[in-house]
Amino acid sequence: MAQSSIQPVNLKKVAYLGPRGTFSEEIALGFYRGMDGQFKPYNSIDAVIRAVADGDADEGIVPVENSLEGSVNITLDTLAHEVELVIVKEMVRPVCQHLLINPGTRHVNVVVSHPQSLAQCRHYLRLNYPGAELVAAESTAAAAYQVASGAKNHAAIGSRRAAEIYGLQVIAADIHDNPNNSTRFIVVSKDGAAERVSQPYKTSLVCRIRGEKPGSLGELLAEFAGRRVNLTKIESRPARTGLGEYIFFFDLDGSGEDQNVREALAAVQLRSLWFKNLGSYPVFAVKAE
Amino acid sequence: MAQSSIQPVNLKKVAYLGPRGTFSEEIALGFYRGMDGQFKPYNSIDAVIRAVADGDADEGIVPVENSLEGSVNITLDTLAHEVELVIVKEMVRPVCQHLLINPGTRHVNVVVSHPQSLAQCRHYLRLNYPGAELVAAESTAAAAYQVASGAKNHAAIGSRRAAEIYGLQVIAADIHDNPNNSTRFIVVSKDGAAERVSQPYKTSLVCRIRGEKPGSLGELLAEFAGRRVNLTKIESRPARTGLGEYIFFFDLDGSGEDQNVREALAAVQLRSLWFKNLGSYPVFAVKAE
Repeated sequence: MAQSSIQPVNLKKVAYLGPRGTFSEEIALGFYRGMDGQFKPYNSIDAVIRAVADGDADEGIVPVENSLEGSVNITLDTLAHEVELVIVKEMVRPVCQHLLINPGTRHVNVVVSHPQSLAQCRHYLRLNYPGAELVAAESTAAAAYQVASGAKNHAAIGSRRAAEIYGLQVIAADIHDNPNNSTRFIVVSKDGAAERVSQPYKTSLVCRIRGEKPGSLGELLAEFAGRRVNLTKIESRPARTGLGEYIFFFDLDGSGEDQNVREALAAVQLRSLWFKNLGSYPVFAVKAE
Repeated sequence: MAQSSIQPVNLKKVAYLGPRGTFSEEIALGFYRGMDGQFKPYNSIDAVIRAVADGDADEGIVPVENSLEGSVNITLDTLAHEVELVIVKEMVRPVCQHLLINPGTRHVNVVVSHPQSLAQCRHYLRLNYPGAELVAAESTAAAAYQVASGAKNHAAIGSRRAAEIYGLQVIAADIHDNPNNSTRFIVVSKDGAAERVSQPYKTSLVCRIRGEKPGSLGELLAEFAGRRVNLTKIESRPARTGLGEYIFFFDLDGSGEDQNVREALAAVQLRSLWFKNLGSYPVFAVKAE
């Protein structure tokens, strides 16, 4: 009683990459457990991010990087070029991929899944289903749904939970090529995180470096190294102004409230033609199914 | 007569991303014009590269980077991790995307194309076909073929040439979101280029940096900058050993026969846990259709 009158009722609207049974949904339901909230699936990463930018949702959960396949480009590009949102949380989750069929299916001619999931199982598929057609779906759960809806001789790649939800059978478990398979999810919002929590923090930024000469990137990196700021990620993406012109995404350990990070951000901004602070946020590890 | 007896008959087998009507095929036919050769389409980038690695083709043509959508990850990852090939040529070509339908189609519910082509037209599609389902195909030409084969209410995104080959109608021309749309193609081979030609050269390498501390990447970049070697591209990709562990792809101006490039490569190799020289190669500009 007392508790609920002190704590504000936080009826957040949370957008995530649906449909039911995606890894994003597991993250959404697991992480916000016990919180009053509305959880709404969207059918693309783009749509999740836009829902937050347009005010249809308070927060959105999207994948941003996989340990085997790299960045989810649509997430990075949309945050850089198209919306003004910040990252308020990061969750890292191990990913296990399974091959799912309708019970009774004898031959698999088509394997359908999210392109990153297909890529994560490339070796397995080449070895076991060399002739199968690989078809892209918007998510692993959309793939499971498609198979469950009766697509003949189809298999989906997805989670055990998707198999349960859609009544499919796991005919091969853990078919991802590499055991080091985990995915980083981020929560985006219009406003930064309200209060500091006792978790490790990271900060993300994207910039276009001023003066594209041989030493420019090295000089910019020295702004981090000189202040002992540890970069956990650097990634170039097209600036969209012509081939060979790039913007750079940096992830670094620490929060913008830390003095060395704050100073490094200011110094990097001075060396940038264009600079966007994507926020400082706590990092959580999430257990697998 | 004299000419043909002096010149060796160069009956090269050239693999490219098919089917008929892809940008890769245009590059193949245009660039090798007049040369005796066998041109063989493969249905995935992976398959093209493997055909060369397995000796089924002498050279393979694959896209490696688009100015809007960035690197073609499967090309980079396959060259880094799975085969021992070198790049022997690079071609840069402007890309124009068009919306193609079967003559008489009234409603478009589904738009099919290569994922990069769909991404290149993201704004156009959201504005003009907000409800349409976007479906991934292995290539723009495969998408055109699929539409021509009678898929109802489908449109493909592809080239004017694909429209001609498959009897489709261009209902909207130049629908790519950004005029700075061009793609880099590379030719891969088991052996390096035979003789130097009078074109600008580039060199590509991939490495895993030794000692992942804050300053390591900056120190490595200084090896290039200190020798006035101009980097045209830097890209991190997962090392596939765990989240936060990366390999780096570098493209730079100049050939491994140039002294400053040779010295920089040797210095970078010393700073690397793992290092792969992907070759020095001439760069050609190719005109659009």
